[in-house]
Amino acid sequence: MAPTASSPATPPGLADLFAALRFDAAGLVPAIAQDAEGGDVLMLAWMDRAAIAETLATGRVCYFSRSRDRLWRKGETSGQIQRLVELRLDCDGDAVLLLVTQTGVACHTGRRSCFFRAVRDGVFREIAPPLVAPETLYGG
Amino acid sequence: MAPTASSPATPPGLADLFAALRFDAAGLVPAIAQDAEGGDVLMLAWMDRAAIAETLATGRVCYFSRSRDRLWRKGETSGQIQRLVELRLDCDGDAVLLLVTQTGVACHTGRRSCFFRAVRDGVFREIAPPLVAPETLYGG
Repeated sequence: MAPTASSPATPPGLADLFAALRFDAAGLVPAIAQDAEGGDVLMLAWMDRAAIAETLATGRVCYFSRSRDRLWRKGETSGQIQRLVELRLDCDGDAVLLLVTQTGVACHTGRRSCFFRAVRDGVFREIAPPLVAPETLYGG
Repeated sequence: MAPTASSPATPPGLADLFAALRFDAAGLVPAIAQDAEGGDVLMLAWMDRAAIAETLATGRVCYFSRSRDRLWRKGETSGQIQRLVELRLDCDGDAVLLLVTQTGVACHTGRRSCFFRAVRDGVFREIAPPLVAPETLYGG
């Protein structure tokens, strides 16, 4: 079947996935990145239809940056890329789980996970140190 | 210090957490629930300020239901409650990670995790069966 204007990037066989996805009013779904090996939740970002299609087609995780208003190939500046191991969708189709192999660190602060602050013993505090200086990742 | 109208439910010592939270235009943040033992990501839901305060105060996870437009004490109908082990916040304060102890199943379909559909071998399909019938959880 020829591609149509409304589905330019649907990989063959994945029409069911895209039919099940429920994007929000901005055309986005939240996407959780989880370390496929250790199981740590690394970050939460957002994907649009094009980001999901590109990620599945290339095997390299691509998000949609709300602050930059464009596709964001994770690691395009820092080199800290994510390879997709498996994409999962939740029961009502409005959240995505990405099992990934993370190169280096996921967080722009130089920490492995973006979730490095927690409430412990009734106090909100940092629980993980940077593994690399941000200047090393993004230039001085 | 006496509580103020704008911060009726801030537990003592957690002002830093609430100052770091960045709610969206609807007053919500996405919250990932992860099994504190096995590491499985169970679900993604939403929390407002009151849901976070209640969860921290009681140790039982409370979300904000967007469909019902009210606080949703997870398991209030099904009995499948979540006990909070730890609440974490991401680097920019707009996503929450809840490490939880899940009673029974997290998904209303009777599956342990809401993320029971995946793309495998280029095909979008179910990867986990229900462990309990939904009618058992919610009545016939």
